[in-house]
Amino acid sequence: MKALWLENNKISLRDDVPQPQKPNEALIKIRKAGICSTDLELVKGYYPYTGVLGHEFVGEVVEAPDASWIGARVVGDINAVCGKCEACLNGRSTHCESRTVLGIVNRDGVFAEYTTLPLENLHRVPDSVPDKMAVFTEPLAAALEIQQQIQIKPTDRVLVVGAGRLGQLISQTLALTGCDLHVLARHSFQQNLLTARGIRIISAENIQPRKWDVVVEVTGSPDGFNIARTAIRPRGTLVLKSTYKGDMSVNFSSIVVDEINIVGSRCGPFEPALRLMEKREVDPTVLIAEEYALGDGILAFEKAAKSGMLKVLVGA
Amino acid sequence: MKALWLENNKISLRDDVPQPQKPNEALIKIRKAGICSTDLELVKGYYPYTGVLGHEFVGEVVEAPDASWIGARVVGDINAVCGKCEACLNGRSTHCESRTVLGIVNRDGVFAEYTTLPLENLHRVPDSVPDKMAVFTEPLAAALEIQQQIQIKPTDRVLVVGAGRLGQLISQTLALTGCDLHVLARHSFQQNLLTARGIRIISAENIQPRKWDVVVEVTGSPDGFNIARTAIRPRGTLVLKSTYKGDMSVNFSSIVVDEINIVGSRCGPFEPALRLMEKREVDPTVLIAEEYALGDGILAFEKAAKSGMLKVLVGA
Repeated sequence: MKALWLENNKISLRDDVPQPQKPNEALIKIRKAGICSTDLELVKGYYPYTGVLGHEFVGEVVEAPDASWIGARVVGDINAVCGKCEACLNGRSTHCESRTVLGIVNRDGVFAEYTTLPLENLHRVPDSVPDKMAVFTEPLAAALEIQQQIQIKPTDRVLVVGAGRLGQLISQTLALTGCDLHVLARHSFQQNLLTARGIRIISAENIQPRKWDVVVEVTGSPDGFNIARTAIRPRGTLVLKSTYKGDMSVNFSSIVVDEINIVGSRCGPFEPALRLMEKREVDPTVLIAEEYALGDGILAFEKAAKSGMLKVLVGA
Repeated sequence: MKALWLENNKISLRDDVPQPQKPNEALIKIRKAGICSTDLELVKGYYPYTGVLGHEFVGEVVEAPDASWIGARVVGDINAVCGKCEACLNGRSTHCESRTVLGIVNRDGVFAEYTTLPLENLHRVPDSVPDKMAVFTEPLAAALEIQQQIQIKPTDRVLVVGAGRLGQLISQTLALTGCDLHVLARHSFQQNLLTARGIRIISAENIQPRKWDVVVEVTGSPDGFNIARTAIRPRGTLVLKSTYKGDMSVNFSSIVVDEINIVGSRCGPFEPALRLMEKREVDPTVLIAEEYALGDGILAFEKAAKSGMLKVLVGA
C-alpha cells in the first residue's frame, strides 16, 4: 500500500509498504490524517523512529475481531498498552512502560491507506461530526489533558504562550472554563482566529509579570518558557504542553522560593473531545490551512514545516 | 546589643548593634536560635543581605503593643507581610510582594539578643515544648509545607533524597502519613538517626527508576536532582525543597512526555508543627549537634558549615 515512510530521518512516499495485518486488532481505512509538530520533530530526528508516520486520523473499520465495529467511523487513542502493568492498573495507561505509540514508537502510523489499532483504542465518531472535524480529536484531547491534570478555576487569570496548531485548540477549550484568558499569538492570522472567537490576545510587552494563576507554554522554545516563567505568579501553575529540543537551563531556586508548580502534559481523553465537537463548543476546522492527497504527502510535510503554518491534512 | 552581622558576605560578631525598636511590633528576647542552610548560603553570598542573620528561634516577648503577649514564650513566622496585596488577600501571604523576611530580606534576624516581629507573626509555645524543641518550629513547618501543597496518600511510594537538617525533619513528618517511605542518606550518622525512628534508608543503587509516586529533593545539588528525576514515575510529583546555586540544565521534553509534576516548596505552617512537637510525634532534638553562646557565634557558623553537620544552636 501507499504510505509515508520515515527512515534515517528521511521521509519518503512508498508504494510497497505491506498492508498491516494484526488479527487481534481492527484494520482501519484512513479517511483523513493531520500533520502535527511531533511528526515534524520525528522527521528532524529529535526521536528515533522508523516506520509509517502519523497519529492524528479519522478512519473506517474494515476488519475487526468483533464484527460490530466493521463499517464504524472511528478515531483512536495513539497509545497501545499492555493493560497489566502498574501504570495500566492505576489509571495511567498512557504511561504504560511497554506501550507502542501510533506513528511514534514501534507502531506504524496513519499517513497510509490503512492502519491497525486494538479495539479498546477506538472511539466511534458521532454522525454529526464530519471527518474534517474528527481528524482533530487527538490534538483536542491533548488540549483537554490540561483540565484533566489541574483545576482551572473560573476566576483564574490564564495565559497561553503560543497560538500555533495546539495553542489554538488549547485556547478554545480553556475559553470554555470561563477563566480570564489571554493568548500570546505571534502571527496576525493566529490573532485573527482567536479574536474571531472572542478570545483576547495580548502582546509580550503587556504581559504583567508574576500575575497569572496558570500559564500554558505551547511554543516549545526557551523564549516561550522564559515568558511563561516571568508571567506566573508565586504558587501558580506552569503547564508545559510542548517538548523542547535538548536540555534547557533554568533557575530552580526561584521556582522553589516562588513555590511554582510545573506540570508536563501530553495525551488526553478522546470522549470529551468528541463531545465538545458534537456540541460545536469548539471548532478546530478553522485551523485547516491545506489538504493534500496521500500521494502528495511529501509536499504536505514541506508545507506543514513552514513557520506559523496551521493544520495540514492528508487525505486517503 | 550583641549580634551576628552580615555585610559584604562577611559575618562578624558586633557589640554595637542598636537594640531594635518598632513600636508596632513585639520586642522579643532570643532564648535559642538555629543555623540553617539559608544562613550559610547568605554568608556565601548567594543572595544579597546586610544585617543581623538568623530566622529560626524561640524567644520571650518583653515588650508588645498588646500587653497580653508580654512574658509569652514564642516562635515566629519569618515573613512580615502587608496584609493588603493580592497575594495576602488570597491566602498566599508568605508570597506578599512587599514582604520583609526575618534575617533574610530587609529585616534584622535572630542571632542577636533581641529581635522584633509583628504580633500576627507570633505563636505561643506550649509549656510542654522545651526551647531546644521549639527552636525547630520554623524548619519543621517548612517540612510540613509539602503536605500543605500536595496530597501524600498512605499508599504512595515516597523517596526523600538527602538527609541533612531539613531532610531529617521531612522524613519524620512524611513517616507520619503511613506512606511507603525510603530516604537516601549519605552519612552513617544520618542513617542511624533515621533507622532509630524506624524510617527505612535506601542506597542510590537500590532506588528503582521510574517507580516512586513522590520524590522530595532536599540536597540542592544537580546530582540530587538527577537522582530524584530518575526515580519519579510518570505522572509522579517531584518536590523541590532546597535551592540550587545558579541555573540547572534539565531535559524538559522528558518531563512533558512523562507528565511529571514539579513543585517548589518553601515556608510552611507553624501551628501544625507546634502540635506535632507537643504530641511528640516528631523529635527534632535528635538533630542537635552543638550549642554555642551568641558570643561564640562565629565558631558556631564555622561548625555548621561542615559537610553533613546537623543542627548547630546559638544560645542567648
